[in-house]
Amino acid sequence: MTNLEKIIKNFSRLPGIGRKSAARITYWLLKSDPNIAHQLGEQLQVLHSMIKKCSICGNYTEQDPCPICSNPGRDRSLMCVVENPQDVSTIEETREYNGIYHVLGGAISPMNGIGSEDLSIGQLMKRVSSEPVREVILATNPTVEGDTTALYIQQLLKDRGISVSRLAAGLPVGGDLEYADRMTLARSLKGRTAMY
Amino acid sequence: MTNLEKIIKNFSRLPGIGRKSAARITYWLLKSDPNIAHQLGEQLQVLHSMIKKCSICGNYTEQDPCPICSNPGRDRSLMCVVENPQDVSTIEETREYNGIYHVLGGAISPMNGIGSEDLSIGQLMKRVSSEPVREVILATNPTVEGDTTALYIQQLLKDRGISVSRLAAGLPVGGDLEYADRMTLARSLKGRTAMY
Repeated sequence: MTNLEKIIKNFSRLPGIGRKSAARITYWLLKSDPNIAHQLGEQLQVLHSMIKKCSICGNYTEQDPCPICSNPGRDRSLMCVVENPQDVSTIEETREYNGIYHVLGGAISPMNGIGSEDLSIGQLMKRVSSEPVREVILATNPTVEGDTTALYIQQLLKDRGISVSRLAAGLPVGGDLEYADRMTLARSLKGRTAMY
Repeated sequence: MTNLEKIIKNFSRLPGIGRKSAARITYWLLKSDPNIAHQLGEQLQVLHSMIKKCSICGNYTEQDPCPICSNPGRDRSLMCVVENPQDVSTIEETREYNGIYHVLGGAISPMNGIGSEDLSIGQLMKRVSSEPVREVILATNPTVEGDTTALYIQQLLKDRGISVSRLAAGLPVGGDLEYADRMTLARSLKGRTAMY
């Protein structure tokens, strides 16, 4: 295998990139300014040494604690629990949330052999006891695994005097009733909001 | 912009990768074995210094001349003319071709300001004169630009005692007449092959 084939093969291991896309990317890089490949290569080499998990919330960060955990302007009484680090940046992009986060590192999934002990649920309980948390928003995915995880955490948080909420599931904004799947529509009916 | 955002941005510059895919790839790399990111990074850093264009045919190679040009088992009387280096590997994968190649570096496209002088057509004419070429297969793409380029080269090669052929255009194997576009169907009618 030539080095060209090796790099194409390595690109095709990335999620969402097949062999054809990998070849296209590699040839595009060869045709483009060498700095593009060089810079990306440099960043990939230091990726893991540069970016670590925040020791408090579990989000990826370059400084520990992460900028959100160490930001005094954040509302420490509101904690949003998510499955993965990318969920933090997705929620941050809405600019609607000013609380803190807790990253579980996945969701309970017996099918994939992931139990509650594989997630940072113990750390979450410790934080809830030691930090001034008043509300926990369970923002796991609206999937069987995410729902199971939310239910499990909700049970653990019972009788602690903490409000526990779950992200609303329903029709996507700009969506069309006609194209909504049965499950989503059922959820949006069940979770309907009173107008008056 | 954090380094995490920077690497996501650099991934999203690659062809076929949007912002969401770039984020997905980056988070996947962070979650995976650090060696994957490190190895890909290393390969990207040396990509341009390791892989050059063959001084004879213009294909990407790690040695000059490339393994195809320097292979004595190749039929030097048969030359396949393609637009881009990736076309060479696509044709090689068929395992149906044992001649040599010439990479033009693109196709004539007045819309994009690419004229015949921007392609390695002069080098092609020199090779045809000095090498024992008996047939030239014009394997440019079946597009307006590819057809124009093929026509242009065909004119230049006239009266040189060299056979000039063009890749057959028509229905893709396994395809369905019903889903063929008008142009493809028209070409496959025009280029129909006699059965007896």
